[in-house]
Amino acid sequence: MTPSRKWLAALAALVIAVAPLAAEPLSSWNDGPAKQNIVTFVNAVTQKGGKDFVAESERIAVFDNDGTLWIEQPIYVQFAFMLDQLRAAAPKHPEWQSNPAFKALLAQDKKALAEIGQKPVLELLVTANSGMTVGEYDQSIRNWMKSARHPQLKRPYTELVFAPMQELLVYLRASGFKTFIVSGGSVEFMRPWAEQAYGIPPEQIIGSQQDVSFAMRDGKPVLTRAPKIAFVDDGPGKPVGIYRQLGRRPIAAFGNSDGDLQMLQVTAAGEGRRLALIVHHDDAEREYAYDRDSHIGKLDKAWDEAKARNWIVVSMKSDWKKVFAFQK
Amino acid sequence: MTPSRKWLAALAALVIAVAPLAAEPLSSWNDGPAKQNIVTFVNAVTQKGGKDFVAESERIAVFDNDGTLWIEQPIYVQFAFMLDQLRAAAPKHPEWQSNPAFKALLAQDKKALAEIGQKPVLELLVTANSGMTVGEYDQSIRNWMKSARHPQLKRPYTELVFAPMQELLVYLRASGFKTFIVSGGSVEFMRPWAEQAYGIPPEQIIGSQQDVSFAMRDGKPVLTRAPKIAFVDDGPGKPVGIYRQLGRRPIAAFGNSDGDLQMLQVTAAGEGRRLALIVHHDDAEREYAYDRDSHIGKLDKAWDEAKARNWIVVSMKSDWKKVFAFQK
Repeated sequence: MTPSRKWLAALAALVIAVAPLAAEPLSSWNDGPAKQNIVTFVNAVTQKGGKDFVAESERIAVFDNDGTLWIEQPIYVQFAFMLDQLRAAAPKHPEWQSNPAFKALLAQDKKALAEIGQKPVLELLVTANSGMTVGEYDQSIRNWMKSARHPQLKRPYTELVFAPMQELLVYLRASGFKTFIVSGGSVEFMRPWAEQAYGIPPEQIIGSQQDVSFAMRDGKPVLTRAPKIAFVDDGPGKPVGIYRQLGRRPIAAFGNSDGDLQMLQVTAAGEGRRLALIVHHDDAEREYAYDRDSHIGKLDKAWDEAKARNWIVVSMKSDWKKVFAFQK
Repeated sequence: MTPSRKWLAALAALVIAVAPLAAEPLSSWNDGPAKQNIVTFVNAVTQKGGKDFVAESERIAVFDNDGTLWIEQPIYVQFAFMLDQLRAAAPKHPEWQSNPAFKALLAQDKKALAEIGQKPVLELLVTANSGMTVGEYDQSIRNWMKSARHPQLKRPYTELVFAPMQELLVYLRASGFKTFIVSGGSVEFMRPWAEQAYGIPPEQIIGSQQDVSFAMRDGKPVLTRAPKIAFVDDGPGKPVGIYRQLGRRPIAAFGNSDGDLQMLQVTAAGEGRRLALIVHHDDAEREYAYDRDSHIGKLDKAWDEAKARNWIVVSMKSDWKKVFAFQK
């Protein structure tokens, strides 16, 4: 390293060290134990020479998406997308008329959907979009996200991300963390908009996977969607997805439902200081209120575990000044 | 943004802009068309306002590992590891005595191994290490890498990475690229040492995958290896692995054999300026010389494609001043 590079490196280090101090992190969070615990954790793992210091390369934070980073009621956003896709594809699939998952989806029968589970529903989706190239599928998601509106809040879904969680993502990255999404939803559904909404690039999104296959078509290589689910990234699948794609144990995990339990357990079980946090939807006025009895985003076992293990439970009602950026 | 943050951001931008100029990139590369083409490409995609400019987030470069970043003769390094693992596990598996892949491996019968293909060989390996936790497996790789030596060069394998390619990785990252490994080998085999050898962290390694499953053991969550291959990241599997994990089309790809053909094709077929490069092993004195007739790292179809499409073909003999860092 020449002297000039040394000087530049020192300068860069200074800039990086000073910049976060100038920011005002977590401004949509009320000063309560949740915010305090987050800040205490971040200070502990970033303090050089401190007993809880964690090297930057190991500062991995994983976030569930539905219900943790954005809205998931009255149905998962991807379900709303699927419904529109299925309606469009239904004329070509008369066999769907007798398919329980198809009927439950069209009727938006939450109870039946919860009983049927994620896999048969995902199977319908993969059939609906199989044969599309990955580029065509990506475009269909982009188009839908532009025109779709939430049935009650009448806003584009990308406005229904949680402002306090966006701030948390920014705060963690400013503190040297690398942030990942780990979602039960399909990875392709999140990639087109997650970078703008969360600052998380496509390669840092872990999700359920549909098979794709390579072929040459008119002398050009294409990837085409196949009617098969390759991986379901939910519940016990989440730590598996993290292992496959990330290859390190996170030191911080953020979820809101029983589907996040194993991801939180694996994160919390690592050596050294760890952060496990659950967002509790208790704000019927500004968003929704649901937990143990909900068909979507059921929070039951993970809540008990949070209490037993002293994980942070965020009350959307009392810990957040606002839920969405458009609220005052 | 407060004025002080603005000032810091401007300073950071300046530091980032100036720093690469101070480095001396690709010093182990002779001044020939290969080096010239690489530098011309990097200058084109990084020149702001230029017609070939590519935003930093899209500057994705993918590298094959075996034969592209490190040695792959006389057998893939992972095969050498597997042999030791299989020898250790053989007493517990009398059924292997009649398994063609096992026999070919122990005899190091390259011809038979090439005919058998990668899958039966990987299947043996996954059986040998199934039941191990992912932590135990990781440790077994670390231990082996410490003690193992190349049969001819008598050095640890981590010294047998190609110095010019290490420089290329550094040069690309200094130019705003994000660098990934995309290997037919298993992802876990590379993670323990790739960060030190290449500066590539675990989450930027794409490779073949073995199933792992989640379980609670004595109240603690563990991931255990299952005797099943989940994904083979070779040939047409490489663009699929890139799509699954990375979600963007790379703008630069580096390989050395027919197993890299589809990855190179997909990369080269993208819009805008692209770089596709093949390392040709033609240096029997400093490393090995092999191509169309080799059982390992066969370079045949990809070579024809490289010639037809004007991809860069690097001659290790004439383009590189040295192959390994320990050579003068």
